Amino acid sequence: MTNFEFLVPTKIIFGQDTENTVGSRVKEYYGGKILLHYGGSSAERSGLLARVRKSLDDAGVEYKELGGVMPNPRLTLVHEGVELCRKEGIGFILAVGGGSAIDSSKAIAMGVPYDGDVWDFYCGNAAPKTALPVATVLTIPAAGSESSPSTVITNELTGRKYGCTNELTRPVFSIMNPVLTYTLPAYQTACGAADIMAHIMERYFTNEQGVDFTDRLCEAGLKTIIVNVPKVLENPGDYASRANVMWAGAVAHNGLFGTGRTEDWASHGIEHELSAMYDIAHGAGLAIIFPAWMRYVMENNVMRVAQFANRVWDVSMNFENPAETALGGIKCLKNFFKSIGLPTSLSEAGIDDSAIAEMAQKCTGNDSFTVGGFAKLTANDVYEIYKLAL
Amino acid sequence: MTNFEFLVPTKIIFGQDTENTVGSRVKEYYGGKILLHYGGSSAERSGLLARVRKSLDDAGVEYKELGGVMPNPRLTLVHEGVELCRKEGIGFILAVGGGSAIDSSKAIAMGVPYDGDVWDFYCGNAAPKTALPVATVLTIPAAGSESSPSTVITNELTGRKYGCTNELTRPVFSIMNPVLTYTLPAYQTACGAADIMAHIMERYFTNEQGVDFTDRLCEAGLKTIIVNVPKVLENPGDYASRANVMWAGAVAHNGLFGTGRTEDWASHGIEHELSAMYDIAHGAGLAIIFPAWMRYVMENNVMRVAQFANRVWDVSMNFENPAETALGGIKCLKNFFKSIGLPTSLSEAGIDDSAIAEMAQKCTGNDSFTVGGFAKLTANDVYEIYKLAL
Repeated sequence: MTNFEFLVPTKIIFGQDTENTVGSRVKEYYGGKILLHYGGSSAERSGLLARVRKSLDDAGVEYKELGGVMPNPRLTLVHEGVELCRKEGIGFILAVGGGSAIDSSKAIAMGVPYDGDVWDFYCGNAAPKTALPVATVLTIPAAGSESSPSTVITNELTGRKYGCTNELTRPVFSIMNPVLTYTLPAYQTACGAADIMAHIMERYFTNEQGVDFTDRLCEAGLKTIIVNVPKVLENPGDYASRANVMWAGAVAHNGLFGTGRTEDWASHGIEHELSAMYDIAHGAGLAIIFPAWMRYVMENNVMRVAQFANRVWDVSMNFENPAETALGGIKCLKNFFKSIGLPTSLSEAGIDDSAIAEMAQKCTGNDSFTVGGFAKLTANDVYEIYKLAL
Repeated sequence: MTNFEFLVPTKIIFGQDTENTVGSRVKEYYGGKILLHYGGSSAERSGLLARVRKSLDDAGVEYKELGGVMPNPRLTLVHEGVELCRKEGIGFILAVGGGSAIDSSKAIAMGVPYDGDVWDFYCGNAAPKTALPVATVLTIPAAGSESSPSTVITNELTGRKYGCTNELTRPVFSIMNPVLTYTLPAYQTACGAADIMAHIMERYFTNEQGVDFTDRLCEAGLKTIIVNVPKVLENPGDYASRANVMWAGAVAHNGLFGTGRTEDWASHGIEHELSAMYDIAHGAGLAIIFPAWMRYVMENNVMRVAQFANRVWDVSMNFENPAETALGGIKCLKNFFKSIGLPTSLSEAGIDDSAIAEMAQKCTGNDSFTVGGFAKLTANDVYEIYKLAL
């Protein structure tokens, strides 16, 4: 186990009707004008935004609104948000929505007090020294951004999608009401499930020895998704299953499951190129990439993939041939993604091989660079993984 | 799943040699004079206190010392600490040791700014409005006090042992170096294991439905202890196993495993009377009480005890007779405690039935009061549990 530091300063406020307390919650942290930042029509249609506005009004919180966040949130809207906050003297950002609204809010929060372009933080050309506080009312369990220090933004002018991880971006509080997820379309629920599972698997696949506790926590998280997501798809108003998925989604990406271990994150990088180029849902991209990645790297550490198969998917351990067990686990993962309605190949998503060489190059950045902690992948390896996923 | 709020503001600093950074860590939080509070000879003998003093000196942290904390920490030493802090103008407390040193530090931290007797907080006669910050260098994985909001103190004049839970007492940081636990006697390691398991089981045994995620997290924590503690007893210098036990011990009691569920805590109450009266180790008392409690209450919710047996202990599920499965799990728990050298009956601990009626009365406080969330136990029920444990 490696040395680590761990602190999640995000207060989780979980359960039914909790969004109606958002105004007084904000007041505990900030007394001035805030930005209410969100996607659009669904939060408006469901009445959520009306309830949030009422709670803010009742608590005497002054706010400006900026809607229009898209999936794979865009840099131009971030720039607009930064300008608006500066003009209005805004010092706190409340995101209402899923990972896109939250990631966009985090970008604005870092951009406001920064002299340069906030994109610098995503390119790694600068690190933020300060940021406005961000809070969230979560509507989609998926990205884990509600308690993570991460944000992913797409620069739509260059087609690049980059992440930035900084402790300054952890939300101060996140309100999570599972009822708000009842109206999610099945496909979006499934994409969220794949994203949550990917956050866990990126941590699970490590070569670090002696990390039994976090292995078992990861397995608990994966099993929770595997058991509860089909129930949610069967019955969208199943509170307990929605709640389990939502809470697991937040813990999956707050860092606990990765404590004391090196992590992988190659699949996320490989997928980011895909969704930046084709604008497919991140979760769908992960459902395509992860099984292919796992198949490609399994020789690297067959026993770890066999453990995944045996403990997460209850595949019987073949002690004479652990690779067979490992392959069985990968098959289960792929079948699970299929069963919840996700594509598991590029062709199912309407993507051919025309850009895979270019994406592989972009992913590693340079022929001599590698991605991934579990297996170090060159541009050529990434190319082979795209090919396996065709 | 019930609504909940969750926040752990304790920064965990985990790994080898981390205690040598304690001086600069303190400086991040407090610039004035601090109290260094600890038990005694073992931390002195091992050189840990010397390293802590050096780190404080190097960072220019001024400190006073108060040693002598005993297992089942005493109120008189807390009073002494409160006086010392007031006299010296101390505003921050650094605990070095296990749960006793930390719980005593938390009591002093609440007592310093309070006009009355800090014991009021433990009797429930008052609630603290403020407290000094506490930080810890942990040497024993057991109590979980390093990241919990709880403290337990014994009033040795009245023989009462009470707990106080308040968010003000969560440590600001905890330094956890598994190497510091290498020199723990086997019996103390085993007592710590029982305490950690008890913290998880007090949360696991709930009648709340639809808490799949936290069930699985609890199971992950229990399995971690069951797998790693025997390795640690076999090889006291096994870093990975020590590290897994230590990290699991902190997470077991920080509140995560209890989110969204009612908890039980009867066994802790029943044990507290035991260790207040006989001054046996808390973990040993729990190893005696928990299996008896479980046997007594299992009819209440046989399927939950069967789930415990099946998922934690791999007892085959008897679908025709779940009670048999449940009993198999209780037997496994008892055998595990025995195998790590703990007593599992009062007689093994040299305790007869002479005081069990008195302890049962004290435990519930009054004939019409009950203890426990999973099963509501009267004084008579508690008496029967002590009898089962004889």
